[in-house]
Amino acid sequence: MTATAYFAAGQDLWEKYQPHLERAFGELGLDVTLAPHAPDPAAVAFIIFAPGGEIEDFTPYTNCRAVLNLWAGVERIVGNRTLTQPLCRMVDPALTEGMVEWVTGHVLRHHLGIDSHILNQDGIWRRDAVPPIARDRPVAMLGLGELGRACGAALAALNFPVMGWSRTARDVVGIECHSGDEGLEHVLRRAEIVVTLLPLTPETENLLDARRLGWLSQGAVIINPGRGPLIEDEALLAALDRGQVKHATLDVFRTEPLPPEHPFWAHPRVTVTPHIAAETRPASASRVVAENIRRSLANEPLLYLVDRARGY
Amino acid sequence: MTATAYFAAGQDLWEKYQPHLERAFGELGLDVTLAPHAPDPAAVAFIIFAPGGEIEDFTPYTNCRAVLNLWAGVERIVGNRTLTQPLCRMVDPALTEGMVEWVTGHVLRHHLGIDSHILNQDGIWRRDAVPPIARDRPVAMLGLGELGRACGAALAALNFPVMGWSRTARDVVGIECHSGDEGLEHVLRRAEIVVTLLPLTPETENLLDARRLGWLSQGAVIINPGRGPLIEDEALLAALDRGQVKHATLDVFRTEPLPPEHPFWAHPRVTVTPHIAAETRPASASRVVAENIRRSLANEPLLYLVDRARGY
Repeated sequence: MTATAYFAAGQDLWEKYQPHLERAFGELGLDVTLAPHAPDPAAVAFIIFAPGGEIEDFTPYTNCRAVLNLWAGVERIVGNRTLTQPLCRMVDPALTEGMVEWVTGHVLRHHLGIDSHILNQDGIWRRDAVPPIARDRPVAMLGLGELGRACGAALAALNFPVMGWSRTARDVVGIECHSGDEGLEHVLRRAEIVVTLLPLTPETENLLDARRLGWLSQGAVIINPGRGPLIEDEALLAALDRGQVKHATLDVFRTEPLPPEHPFWAHPRVTVTPHIAAETRPASASRVVAENIRRSLANEPLLYLVDRARGY
Repeated sequence: MTATAYFAAGQDLWEKYQPHLERAFGELGLDVTLAPHAPDPAAVAFIIFAPGGEIEDFTPYTNCRAVLNLWAGVERIVGNRTLTQPLCRMVDPALTEGMVEWVTGHVLRHHLGIDSHILNQDGIWRRDAVPPIARDRPVAMLGLGELGRACGAALAALNFPVMGWSRTARDVVGIECHSGDEGLEHVLRRAEIVVTLLPLTPETENLLDARRLGWLSQGAVIINPGRGPLIEDEALLAALDRGQVKHATLDVFRTEPLPPEHPFWAHPRVTVTPHIAAETRPASASRVVAENIRRSLANEPLLYLVDRARGY
């Protein structure tokens, strides 16, 4: 029997994803019909979803075997009480690769002081500021999930001493792991570059508030490709203004697009990037969706199932 | 008997190197006296040298067992006919690491389009230009010596498809190797980012001239941390002006410091950096010098001996 997969992620994504999903279903030999517009809820076996998609009330989808999110972050739907079906995050290999490239690129940009070269092409040969080598530049990776571990490994491969922090204790090869509030203080006091790659949960919201930003060493750099609310905007601006934070490169914000009047745009030591660090690529993401549909139909365990208690 | 090592690399470097050399000699238990100012030539067992150092005529140093260069490049002394003693290049592990960091940082900078974010903090949320992932961005590494191989490996670890080119055929794991003029055309036609890390020899001088720059794909990026004369300045400026080369990041020049009136400084698509990509670090370089002195005194083969015929 043909299974119906409802593409409830909006028209824009439909145009990008439809050919890739059809191809991925074909590659796995799946008998799945892709439905773009509100099919009979009782007939839906799978929901392919993105925040801003078409479903607010999941109650009528009584035969839905899984909700397959196209984004890594699920904070905008995990609290939806009508969503009782199994929910899977997207772990797109291309997304992980893109994130590793973005994080490594911006860590090296700050490590090497590349901005000063881009901005000072004035004919003056300045040899005063040769950076230390990476092995003398401690980096903190806040968050040791799929993305944090991949980025930490890439930075460690470049010889950066990487300290990792996660809410609950973890053990990751090549990374000096810490957890808990004491662990966070230890890590923030020692790092010169801090990368925030935590999921957004009630526990991580405003994790970097005025008190914890106060633990940073003078002149630390913050790079946030995780979620906007991990950092308190006002506290970060204050830390920038007193020079404790030398620069912040931010890819995610409480409100996106970041409003033009937000002080981050005009701050001379903030770089705003438009939520591009973790871009899901339709080709590879479609293969992940197809694989989870195959698993569900074969009664095999789903990949990347969200733990509702933890919220990710 | 105490061996005399003449530090003929100038007063500035003396102050940086003296404590590190003394420590490195001590670590290896060497009985070596470091002489900063023109000792009796016949008493000199080793010469520690840097371009711009104090010796032009090596003839009087008849008992000198080796000339130990503090720089990786030897083109400014290899042609000195009075220099008949064994000559060693510097292969500083920190220098290699620093070069890998600089090259990887600038490749990622261009790959991710970081400049446009640094320069356009204008409140406009531009999501149009998401870069491809690294595995879809071919990179050319011209030069497969110590530094080229290390940089190529770091880029390949980030999934960039790396094509390598060297004058004489080489085989490097993880890099698609080419050689000869035909190989160079193959590589330049396919690469989107080209890194030049060749030694400067009569054969590599002006390697990238107007004809060979004409092989580049439209919008290619050039990154030169090798030697200035590898690229013909005028031909590069012409390729930039017609858009065939989108950007050039140059760390080395025919004349250094690059004169303020040189057109590279003012060109909107050139980034000049002041010969910082390969910075020898006194601590690690001193250990290499000490190790070669130990080897010479023990009649073991010297590390990084220059091949006079090839010029490096």
